[in-house]
Amino acid sequence: MRIAPPDWSSPLLKAAPAAKFVAAEKDGVFPEGFFSTTNLPTYVKIKGEWRMPLEPRMDGGIVLEKGELLVREGRRIKKGQMVAIASAEDGTEGIYVHSDPFFGQHSQFEFMASDVSREKPVNYEKLAWLIVEERERKGYPIWITGPALVHSRARGDMVWFIENGFVGALLAGNAVAVHDIEASIYGTTLGMTRTGEIAKGGHGLHMRAINMVRQAGSIAAAVKQGIIKDGIMYACVTSDVPFVLTGSIRDDGPLPDVITDMVQAQDAMRGHTIKATMAVLVATALHAIATGNMLPAYFQEASGELREVPTICVDSSEFVVSKLKDRGSHQAFGVVTNAQDFMHILRLYVEKELASRGKGVAR
Amino acid sequence: MRIAPPDWSSPLLKAAPAAKFVAAEKDGVFPEGFFSTTNLPTYVKIKGEWRMPLEPRMDGGIVLEKGELLVREGRRIKKGQMVAIASAEDGTEGIYVHSDPFFGQHSQFEFMASDVSREKPVNYEKLAWLIVEERERKGYPIWITGPALVHSRARGDMVWFIENGFVGALLAGNAVAVHDIEASIYGTTLGMTRTGEIAKGGHGLHMRAINMVRQAGSIAAAVKQGIIKDGIMYACVTSDVPFVLTGSIRDDGPLPDVITDMVQAQDAMRGHTIKATMAVLVATALHAIATGNMLPAYFQEASGELREVPTICVDSSEFVVSKLKDRGSHQAFGVVTNAQDFMHILRLYVEKELASRGKGVAR
Amino acid sequence: MRIAPPDWSSPLLKAAPAAKFVAAEKDGVFPEGFFSTTNLPTYVKIKGEWRMPLEPRMDGGIVLEKGELLVREGRRIKKGQMVAIASAEDGTEGIYVHSDPFFGQHSQFEFMASDVSREKPVNYEKLAWLIVEERERKGYPIWITGPALVHSRARGDMVWFIENGFVGALLAGNAVAVHDIEASIYGTTLGMTRTGEIAKGGHGLHMRAINMVRQAGSIAAAVKQGIIKDGIMYACVTSDVPFVLTGSIRDDGPLPDVITDMVQAQDAMRGHTIKATMAVLVATALHAIATGNMLPAYFQEASGELREVPTICVDSSEFVVSKLKDRGSHQAFGVVTNAQDFMHILRLYVEKELASRGKGVAR
Amino acid sequence: MRIAPPDWSSPLLKAAPAAKFVAAEKDGVFPEGFFSTTNLPTYVKIKGEWRMPLEPRMDGGIVLEKGELLVREGRRIKKGQMVAIASAEDGTEGIYVHSDPFFGQHSQFEFMASDVSREKPVNYEKLAWLIVEERERKGYPIWITGPALVHSRARGDMVWFIENGFVGALLAGNAVAVHDIEASIYGTTLGMTRTGEIAKGGHGLHMRAINMVRQAGSIAAAVKQGIIKDGIMYACVTSDVPFVLTGSIRDDGPLPDVITDMVQAQDAMRGHTIKATMAVLVATALHAIATGNMLPAYFQEASGELREVPTICVDSSEFVVSKLKDRGSHQAFGVVTNAQDFMHILRLYVEKELASRGKGVAR
Repeated sequence: MRIAPPDWSSPLLKAAPAAKFVAAEKDGVFPEGFFSTTNLPTYVKIKGEWRMPLEPRMDGGIVLEKGELLVREGRRIKKGQMVAIASAEDGTEGIYVHSDPFFGQHSQFEFMASDVSREKPVNYEKLAWLIVEERERKGYPIWITGPALVHSRARGDMVWFIENGFVGALLAGNAVAVHDIEASIYGTTLGMTRTGEIAKGGHGLHMRAINMVRQAGSIAAAVKQGIIKDGIMYACVTSDVPFVLTGSIRDDGPLPDVITDMVQAQDAMRGHTIKATMAVLVATALHAIATGNMLPAYFQEASGELREVPTICVDSSEFVVSKLKDRGSHQAFGVVTNAQDFMHILRLYVEKELASRGKGVAR
Repeated sequence: MRIAPPDWSSPLLKAAPAAKFVAAEKDGVFPEGFFSTTNLPTYVKIKGEWRMPLEPRMDGGIVLEKGELLVREGRRIKKGQMVAIASAEDGTEGIYVHSDPFFGQHSQFEFMASDVSREKPVNYEKLAWLIVEERERKGYPIWITGPALVHSRARGDMVWFIENGFVGALLAGNAVAVHDIEASIYGTTLGMTRTGEIAKGGHGLHMRAINMVRQAGSIAAAVKQGIIKDGIMYACVTSDVPFVLTGSIRDDGPLPDVITDMVQAQDAMRGHTIKATMAVLVATALHAIATGNMLPAYFQEASGELREVPTICVDSSEFVVSKLKDRGSHQAFGVVTNAQDFMHILRLYVEKELASRGKGVAR
Repeated sequence: MRIAPPDWSSPLLKAAPAAKFVAAEKDGVFPEGFFSTTNLPTYVKIKGEWRMPLEPRMDGGIVLEKGELLVREGRRIKKGQMVAIASAEDGTEGIYVHSDPFFGQHSQFEFMASDVSREKPVNYEKLAWLIVEERERKGYPIWITGPALVHSRARGDMVWFIENGFVGALLAGNAVAVHDIEASIYGTTLGMTRTGEIAKGGHGLHMRAINMVRQAGSIAAAVKQGIIKDGIMYACVTSDVPFVLTGSIRDDGPLPDVITDMVQAQDAMRGHTIKATMAVLVATALHAIATGNMLPAYFQEASGELREVPTICVDSSEFVVSKLKDRGSHQAFGVVTNAQDFMHILRLYVEKELASRGKGVAR
Repeated sequence: MRIAPPDWSSPLLKAAPAAKFVAAEKDGVFPEGFFSTTNLPTYVKIKGEWRMPLEPRMDGGIVLEKGELLVREGRRIKKGQMVAIASAEDGTEGIYVHSDPFFGQHSQFEFMASDVSREKPVNYEKLAWLIVEERERKGYPIWITGPALVHSRARGDMVWFIENGFVGALLAGNAVAVHDIEASIYGTTLGMTRTGEIAKGGHGLHMRAINMVRQAGSIAAAVKQGIIKDGIMYACVTSDVPFVLTGSIRDDGPLPDVITDMVQAQDAMRGHTIKATMAVLVATALHAIATGNMLPAYFQEASGELREVPTICVDSSEFVVSKLKDRGSHQAFGVVTNAQDFMHILRLYVEKELASRGKGVAR
């Protein structure tokens, strides 16, 4: 790609002053206010002329030596060397970084600009605020969860959110319910204890759990009969939180409540997505993308005003979040972390948010 | 691979009873105690003969129908069908799963047997116990951390561990200290605020931070002069926790304390690894593998007895942990999660562990 | 973990000779045949006594200096220093590595021992040999593929495998067929051209493609009517390769051939898995695990002999392969790579294998 | 986020015609030219009024029924239902998608818009064209490679690129050279054969290889003495391609040619980056980011004109590419795939490109 030169006729560039230089006071140290370079074409105004420094690189300074401009690392600076001083990159301090050909107008060189990254901090305060706010204004937050949430120890935290009124509806697959019910009956998920050991005969335990619910006739019946004593499905049944369990070709069983026809399953999910005012998608690619397909990016308030539907997508890899966005759910905000740890910390922050509002957990 | 047949002459198999069958009481439901199948060659003893069921698959049951053995899913079971009942897979209940050719002797079919997986629960209780125990018995736990820990908000939690005596020595690279010091001076890391926004002129802030420390002469001097007011490096300096900052080709600056020669840097690290009684490796491939190279899998107690060095490796992907093991650090225990969330929850559990021992934080 | 001491009474250890030492001829260089250390407890026999070297680490040598044993890096060796010489680790050359407490008996310290890793080379020769062999002996290889295979440019290679008799049956989801048919009609997948550009109005193209097949009534009808002119589904129809398209909650449409009920879909898949003599799972977690659930680890030959079903699982991350194994498909052999590149190279190697057998492509 | 309403006073919207509706001819099939919905606020002009359809979702059509506008999936369409017909989303066909509040002006709803994704096809033709072009015009392409490239079987392909003049300089770490030399001497990398088996005593082979080169004094000397007989380092030496081997704290040895001081190492790398006209970064996070730090995004031609430096970053995960961009190397073009497969296919395409230019490999 050829890079078109800057538009030197622009008023801003024409009016630019000469760049300022200050002598370094110490070997290996830039003077305060030094201009920190980027990797883009950079022009420095000296004696009315725009010139490019030699040996460009990012994270350096610009040195003027024997009439020559050079980019130099701080460690190579010698006492007395003249170093360019500026913070603006638009020419107003005599240095112009030609970023337009790279980023378009109105954008500039930045670090950490990527959309989704495990390196971005998770703003739990804001998430907690949103979640509490939803409950306050009687919104309809839908939660879409994958089995990782049960597999690991986030199960208790999910129960807490259900029982305390933060979940409008739960959309999940057969596996979430199977693992959850195995955990209630046998204390394991796929035969693994909650501390990660493998139980004897463990590979059959989920099949035995499914069989018991099939015997009972439904999850609600199994709760009633005391077969399921705790956990996510128990909390949904006892707290009257509606759930949709949709099937897949991976399913063992399935459990009696699972909708096995995909067209009916989508219709059942959509019955909730059209009402949703927030969506929390945790540790599931299939269900997250399925929900994203049906979820409007906005909802209409009673006042007629439109609002964006906050859509939080939690996954252990950037890929799932990017994929969700690539299927059109651009509004999704990605949190790249482990589902278990996410649920635990989110709950702590929600508890703090409630405390700060002078409330206990109860509504 | 041809699969050698079972050794029918073994006493266990010769003594095996006939398999037991029980009629299903309901359509779609196995009788209690049904044998849950695997995908391995399976032999069922009927009338003194070992026979293989047709249409094998895992997660099914075994049906005997018109003299034929068939593997069937629970949902396909009809009331009155005869279903095999067993939990043992070694022939002692008339069913033999031929797992030896697949897993070797003394092993058997299991779920969740992989070494490192984000699906395994993190046993924070045990980690917390280990960490508190190390402090109690005056061990020498070394912490090796990558910049992700500072980038995200785990910084405060790391400070807590340092200030409360849980860190024998900190081994890290230039970037950890640079991000940490940028956070102390400007409230950003690589120009990103702690809630993930990008500060104006942010891409130069780490360079300005480095420059200030170079001006001061060392990190300790910068702490003394009030330039660095909080954070990880501040805590190390003020709590007298030794640190080794080793260089790399990625380094900006570097900071004055960084050992830029790799041979000297390794020697400095090894000065700590030979004393280590525990190692916590968080969010760094380079430093984790470097430490692993030098870290014995054991240490010798005053009594002369040998103990394993608990080696915890925390990373957001399975790959780093596997790689560490593939370079010989087999003793490493992998925790697949986000560094920020790990540090936060670990601290909570350590606080709980301390409380349960009737102590506050202070030693 | 306390480490029990070696069993010094074992005949092998009792019979062990003294360790041999040779002087280094040059600074920084070990003598030939030097013992290369591990991170495990190591005992060196000197004057009838087993002693442990100080300052242990892996990848070092053992130096005997003033009666003291020390582990030293090669770069620190001085000319004339006495260095231990041995290759055996079982004591037979006077050095014993105490690996039993770490790995159990009959195992030893190794690098690169992990099960699934992107660092392991892909043995394309062997894969190609297996695939050609399957065709020669009229096996029933089933291919299970995810949409990534169509999304990227592996589509043409998949067609080649279908048309040349290497595919017994194709099991996939709605998305594979939708992307493939969009590619045939519009030259895009989800609106992206085969070189990665985004077509105008692209987000609706897959919906238009689906609509045209729904109008035609079936994929076969759309092929007959000339709507679908090439690609994977076209090849299946024109080469009489059976396919099963199973539904999911993510599906757009779906296409008329898709089995939307999951119980029926599983039954349709199982119709093929019970006949399978090989399975190739490419770029799909859902379908790979679903197939793994139903696929026996073995099949029975006409001779009555059992053989393992070669099960190749190709994915861009270790996680999917580990997950498949963690759900019981231990026999799966993982290839961690990009689906597009895998298909392209596999085809090249199959062509070479055919050439080496003196055959063209045709059967 | 509240969503500001569209600017109804804009000339385009004021001039918009009424939306067009056509009756469906068949159950479950949209009429040709149907408007394919997004998840964004959508307004349909009917009788001079802009109205929003109820029950919005993406990938649906818009039905007008009893004066009501509804979004419906294709499968739910009934013969005779009136369906909106349009392809434009800017109101010019009577339907307006209000995308500005989500994407800003001049942007619109798209699939597959993410920057870096394994789902994006790799344009090998274009890469091959660039690489051949560089050689033709005597550019200075620098290659930066990680050990994965040697570990797996891309080694032979890398040699081919070096020997045929496509590599201006090679920048790598100690490990690349160590693995490569171990492969030349012992046929293994870290004790693993090229088909993935583990050699006996394998964990010490890289140490023996290093020791032999240290004995010889340098890589070039070891080549001259016939110790190193083939491979990447051999090719560099015999083809006079300059290489820079930089050290790290992970290094075993190191080899004699490795620059162990990081400041000197960076200076040596920069000697090449300031001349670079192209950069190919394969399978290395550390070296890629280090190079990115020093590599200008542009170079100046003899004519004075500026051109972008094509910067190709190949890695098995999106994360490394995003990280590189997040450190300022925005110009990097990401290829998410396995290094071994990448090298093999790239070579095939370069051979094709050469053939199409009527040249053999030789310059």
